[in-house]
Amino acid sequence: MSYLDQITSPTLLLDEKICRANLQKMADKAKRHGMQLIPHFKTAQSHKIGNWAKEYGITEITTSSIKMAEYLSGQGWERIHIAFPFNPLEADRLNEIASSQGMSVQLINTETAQKLADTLTNPVSFFIEIDAGYGRTGVDSKDYLGIQKILDIAKSSTNLNFRGFYLHPGHTYYGDIPSIYEETREALSRLKKEFKSQYPDLVTRTGDTPGCSVVEDFGDIDQLGPGNFVFYDLMQAYLGSCSKSDIAVAMAVPVVDIKKDRKEILVHGGGVHFAKDVLSREDGGKNFGELVYLNDDGWVIPEDGSHLKSISQEHGVLKASDELLNKVKVGDVLGILPIHSCMTADCMGAYLTLDGKWVDHAEGSKN
Amino acid sequence: MSYLDQITSPTLLLDEKICRANLQKMADKAKRHGMQLIPHFKTAQSHKIGNWAKEYGITEITTSSIKMAEYLSGQGWERIHIAFPFNPLEADRLNEIASSQGMSVQLINTETAQKLADTLTNPVSFFIEIDAGYGRTGVDSKDYLGIQKILDIAKSSTNLNFRGFYLHPGHTYYGDIPSIYEETREALSRLKKEFKSQYPDLVTRTGDTPGCSVVEDFGDIDQLGPGNFVFYDLMQAYLGSCSKSDIAVAMAVPVVDIKKDRKEILVHGGGVHFAKDVLSREDGGKNFGELVYLNDDGWVIPEDGSHLKSISQEHGVLKASDELLNKVKVGDVLGILPIHSCMTADCMGAYLTLDGKWVDHAEGSKN
Repeated sequence: MSYLDQITSPTLLLDEKICRANLQKMADKAKRHGMQLIPHFKTAQSHKIGNWAKEYGITEITTSSIKMAEYLSGQGWERIHIAFPFNPLEADRLNEIASSQGMSVQLINTETAQKLADTLTNPVSFFIEIDAGYGRTGVDSKDYLGIQKILDIAKSSTNLNFRGFYLHPGHTYYGDIPSIYEETREALSRLKKEFKSQYPDLVTRTGDTPGCSVVEDFGDIDQLGPGNFVFYDLMQAYLGSCSKSDIAVAMAVPVVDIKKDRKEILVHGGGVHFAKDVLSREDGGKNFGELVYLNDDGWVIPEDGSHLKSISQEHGVLKASDELLNKVKVGDVLGILPIHSCMTADCMGAYLTLDGKWVDHAEGSKN
Repeated sequence: MSYLDQITSPTLLLDEKICRANLQKMADKAKRHGMQLIPHFKTAQSHKIGNWAKEYGITEITTSSIKMAEYLSGQGWERIHIAFPFNPLEADRLNEIASSQGMSVQLINTETAQKLADTLTNPVSFFIEIDAGYGRTGVDSKDYLGIQKILDIAKSSTNLNFRGFYLHPGHTYYGDIPSIYEETREALSRLKKEFKSQYPDLVTRTGDTPGCSVVEDFGDIDQLGPGNFVFYDLMQAYLGSCSKSDIAVAMAVPVVDIKKDRKEILVHGGGVHFAKDVLSREDGGKNFGELVYLNDDGWVIPEDGSHLKSISQEHGVLKASDELLNKVKVGDVLGILPIHSCMTADCMGAYLTLDGKWVDHAEGSKN
């Protein structure tokens, strides 16, 4: 029986081969540069995909919330890092998880450092997050005094252990990657030199998918932490991080109506499935996802421009090529490559593989 | 103990009093116009809030998917309508649910009508959805032949029963409401006249929140089906459907960092909590939600312009007023009125009331 026979409603398909190839490629790249790959699992959020990752030498992962860390704990990871400025109200939850799981967190101010120094009952490592320059979060890379204050508070605690500096250059999604990476290398290298005498074992980590995919000079950075690369998506393909054939997930959407005169197909697949990330097309239109043809082995990517031109909560309107219009029928199932796979996976909460097996996601099945 | 003591992570707060006042007001309006209120429960998606609705004379509800209908079935509703062009692949699931729950669906083509005529094993009513004029979905209101073809197929089945015409003028979110409603009244009235001789009991339904909130002339339309009004949100407030004090939900977000020099506050609250709906501000900036001050009784809406200027998957950056900056501390919990409450509730999957009780949502707790 084909996996296609299981689909009656919007379903997020996962091509294990592509996903494994992405893991392999990034693991090889880290190895080639003498770096450790610690993928951000906010994209996959899965025990099963975690087990695949372990086959490529991956021993640590990152999450973006304590809730996600709770889900992924107890699965044999040496350490789980929460790459979000630690929320001091979650200190009890951190203590609970750290009683049985190696954990690290991210600090950017003295208030939260003090809170953890005062309340931790189990060892937890921490990174200091460095502002990558686009101002979302982090300590300024030249604010040595601010950094030292956090470190001094940590020294007062036997449970709060400094691990190094974390810098997420998320502006590679819209900026010039080479110059951003020049700044990233410089900042992390300078910080390492500045604090190495106090902390000989400190490490530095960076990790956006666009940068990790295309950059070949990481200087003396120790760890790579990309997340999205596990699946990639159309945003990454248009940024040049991958090709469309590297995208490991596609949404299967049932066709509910066809308007031949308008060259539009109405599918069941909207904002609650894809989230609402969108790209602009060269013709000025919007692109909420692009058509692929599903078959028993996975999907084929046509070059005919069929794409989701609009979505609402449950509806998707596909601008369709003549080729597609000529063969599509109400009740067919089409595939759509997502714009932003992390958000899409988070909406769907489960994956169906091409051999018809369900793969877990932290949010639980929402099919 | 205050409900505030329960909050350590992003949490969607629900003010029952405001929610009930919204239900009461819309029920009164329907009554005043001699119409039946059949709210769209894609917003609330809740058994508990459904029970509140029943206290205002509401006996039928609408959902946007069969999954949501499955969740809300068996709760004493006379009928649950799925306001989405029926997906023929879900016919088995419809049969299952219709064996114990009054159901209606929406048809817009002969293919799906035939599929249901061939496979239904239990009685199901249907509406024919009429294109409101903005082309998302539905049969053209003057396509009597197309409508008759669907009706003729239904006549061949003892289980598929025509109920009437459904027209969702969703373009009231960006168009001129009075003229849109003039067209809506005209189309539904004309269709009623045209098909009344064949179906003396047919009803007509319309139901967008902006229109249902402000329009006072519904002509001979029989049923009102808005959804968002149960909670309202900032989009509705800026459209003029409600005032900000009518918004029944607010996200509680923990403060994780404060940048006084930039007048910014970093909160735990991002795209996985709010979804990514956004409004444009008059100053050209973006608005992903607006600040409210939480207290033991709920929240107070300041007029100081503090708002979420950007969000990513978990991060929210709040542009803060001086008043807020002067009193906020890391570890505080702030409130944010959402841009689009339907999507926000769908992301969160649970509500916390101001008396500290959890209220269910179809997506399950995601706190």
